[in-house]
Amino acid sequence: MRHFDMEMNDLKSRLVDMAGLVQQMLKATTDELVSRDPNLSETVFSLEKEVNVQEIVIDDKCLKLIALNQPVGADLRFITSAMRINSDLERMADEAVNISEIALDLLKYPQLKPLIDIPKMVSVVQQMVADSIQAFNKSDVELARSVLEKDDEVDDLERLVFKDLKVFMTKSSDPNTIHTAVDLILVARCIERIGDHATNISEDVIFMVHGKDIRHPKNFK
Amino acid sequence: MRHFDMEMNDLKSRLVDMAGLVQQMLKATTDELVSRDPNLSETVFSLEKEVNVQEIVIDDKCLKLIALNQPVGADLRFITSAMRINSDLERMADEAVNISEIALDLLKYPQLKPLIDIPKMVSVVQQMVADSIQAFNKSDVELARSVLEKDDEVDDLERLVFKDLKVFMTKSSDPNTIHTAVDLILVARCIERIGDHATNISEDVIFMVHGKDIRHPKNFK
Repeated sequence: MRHFDMEMNDLKSRLVDMAGLVQQMLKATTDELVSRDPNLSETVFSLEKEVNVQEIVIDDKCLKLIALNQPVGADLRFITSAMRINSDLERMADEAVNISEIALDLLKYPQLKPLIDIPKMVSVVQQMVADSIQAFNKSDVELARSVLEKDDEVDDLERLVFKDLKVFMTKSSDPNTIHTAVDLILVARCIERIGDHATNISEDVIFMVHGKDIRHPKNFK
Repeated sequence: MRHFDMEMNDLKSRLVDMAGLVQQMLKATTDELVSRDPNLSETVFSLEKEVNVQEIVIDDKCLKLIALNQPVGADLRFITSAMRINSDLERMADEAVNISEIALDLLKYPQLKPLIDIPKMVSVVQQMVADSIQAFNKSDVELARSVLEKDDEVDDLERLVFKDLKVFMTKSSDPNTIHTAVDLILVARCIERIGDHATNISEDVIFMVHGKDIRHPKNFK
């Protein structure tokens, strides 16, 4: 195998590993919402540090790969897509940290019994994250497209969550309920964002494989 | 001037123009919150289409600049930073669209008299956007650093907005008040995100000029 190909494989496996860290963060932070175990925040914050280091290492690697090998065509698209995916993974990690901070805040208030459709949202988004990175790893355009379809499902679930929480708030003037409901609205928003980043990654995979930009198709009709 | 330098200048001025569109969107959408004029949403949606087209044109231009000129060092950093800034500008435009959609929803309910500190948040964030793109245009690291400092101010204002809205909701069990307050929480979140993107752009400018990654400094202490 050429040295350049080995370096490209190394770049790919670094991104897959980084996605693994992000998936661990997402699991820990959403477990925390259910278990109310504040120790899980520590896990999330410590994983974020690793993700941040990896982001810089990967970016640096991408710049060196371009500068030293002067790639064109599919290789260049792969590297610039990797830079973008790197950035989306890091922003997913930021959102997981946001959720963990809100989870800590939620501990101050009695638990609002149901988390409504938030666990369902989490499960769809976890699948989107797993599929988007698998699509990248295997250059699997079909799998990438299936992620794009799930984004609408997440948006629908988010709307349901908002609707249910508004009903809670209307029925109760207890400040604790209001506070908890607002926190859960912000959690839903963070989860929805993570889904958006998985969508971005999937669009990058399609661009990387086909060399065709599928973002904003409506503008080109 | 060399052809390559002309192309680099063209890339820079395209990004500055794109930022101008985003600034127009931000102004229109936040004016809409105050004026409750639904026509402003049309302006925002139509500007977003232009931004989306520009994003693809600029990305394509960046790839061609790398493939045809095989830049290294500062030139390569400039182009990859431009790709990242391009993506942050497009995501700012998405947030402006989100605000406009919420503004349309708000029309269904009587106006909750004060917009609290939201106009103040908007004004800080508008300055961050203007400064971050000016910092890019002039390679002005000091200006870029001043944007990073403003990010904390935005976070503080957002916390105040949330606090005030929770008080409103606690005092009123009117579903209209709850609905409006939740909408305004989501608006504040969108504005805060736009500030985050301006922060990202400023970090890119510092990286572009100094060749030093200043993201996540705490991890390297």
